[in-house]
Amino acid sequence: MLQGKLLQLQQSLRTLPGIGDKTAQRLALHIVSQPKDKAKKIADCINEAVEAYLFCDTCNMLSESNPCSICSDSGRDQSKLCIVEHTRDIYSIETTKEYKGLYFVLGHLLSPIDNVGPKEIRFDKLENYILKNNFEEIIFAISPSTEGETTIHFIAEHFKEKLVKLTRLSTGIPYGSDMEYTGTVTLMNAMKRRFPV
Amino acid sequence: MLQGKLLQLQQSLRTLPGIGDKTAQRLALHIVSQPKDKAKKIADCINEAVEAYLFCDTCNMLSESNPCSICSDSGRDQSKLCIVEHTRDIYSIETTKEYKGLYFVLGHLLSPIDNVGPKEIRFDKLENYILKNNFEEIIFAISPSTEGETTIHFIAEHFKEKLVKLTRLSTGIPYGSDMEYTGTVTLMNAMKRRFPV
Repeated sequence: MLQGKLLQLQQSLRTLPGIGDKTAQRLALHIVSQPKDKAKKIADCINEAVEAYLFCDTCNMLSESNPCSICSDSGRDQSKLCIVEHTRDIYSIETTKEYKGLYFVLGHLLSPIDNVGPKEIRFDKLENYILKNNFEEIIFAISPSTEGETTIHFIAEHFKEKLVKLTRLSTGIPYGSDMEYTGTVTLMNAMKRRFPV
Repeated sequence: MLQGKLLQLQQSLRTLPGIGDKTAQRLALHIVSQPKDKAKKIADCINEAVEAYLFCDTCNMLSESNPCSICSDSGRDQSKLCIVEHTRDIYSIETTKEYKGLYFVLGHLLSPIDNVGPKEIRFDKLENYILKNNFEEIIFAISPSTEGETTIHFIAEHFKEKLVKLTRLSTGIPYGSDMEYTGTVTLMNAMKRRFPV
């Protein structure tokens, strides 16, 4: 139903993750109904952020500097490497203040059906990074899913001969959730990995 | 956790309806991780749409022309006026192809607690528009809610003495929904307004 420039705006917003046709239409209409300078501020922020951000050559994290602030921080624990799928996962982990080591961003998870193989998850780069450094522990902070499990298994297979501890984040019932609404696989795993009180 | 230009982008996206902190962060990170030209396309679309769109002086609809394509279409039924809250409601109604009359966009619903009064819903303009024209029917296509009911009641009170039919969209159980999950008020109204099969 939208036409012209508004349709183009809707279609461009439609390309963003989690934004469907309806939401894109709503956002597009909201944007053009705002005062012009307020709407253009959003466009300016996009342009400025796009110019300012690049990928860290070491860990692939999106950053305003290269190397990024984490890779260039000698105060961090150089003996630990945490492997994540997205830069946003780093932000989540950093918020917990539970981890002070380094990161590596895969960008994707292995998914042969979608043609996502070792090249797409930058496996060669990860391998070089691990071989060049003397990590004591490699932590997989990857979503528990078919693709996640495949990716963890694939990477772990390559390094199981090396003297490095391979760990992954615990899986189980999320804090604050209801037993009743917890999925069967989650509950099964939570039962298997039960721990002493 | 985001910083600099990325934080600014997150904050500007945060101003959009239905976009919270988490989603804004996710969108911001997605935007800067795309190829630069793809991300800038979004900014361009915003700027172009903002320049192209304005409010129709007659009905307040967002449009690329003034008067808008609906107000200037003499083929439409000039005897009916449909009052809506947002331009997006017009798009929804037009999709049904059930209505061929004119529209008026209020922009807001009356809400004394939020300081939204007759001025904010452009009541004077609506009154002039109705007095100048010879509408046979005024249709309220406004969400059934406290604010919606208040608004319908307020406007209807002003025109009940005039020889104009005042109607509103039917309320009831939405098509495809489950009786079990239908709210009590909806069900109560649906029972009250039951109609012959």
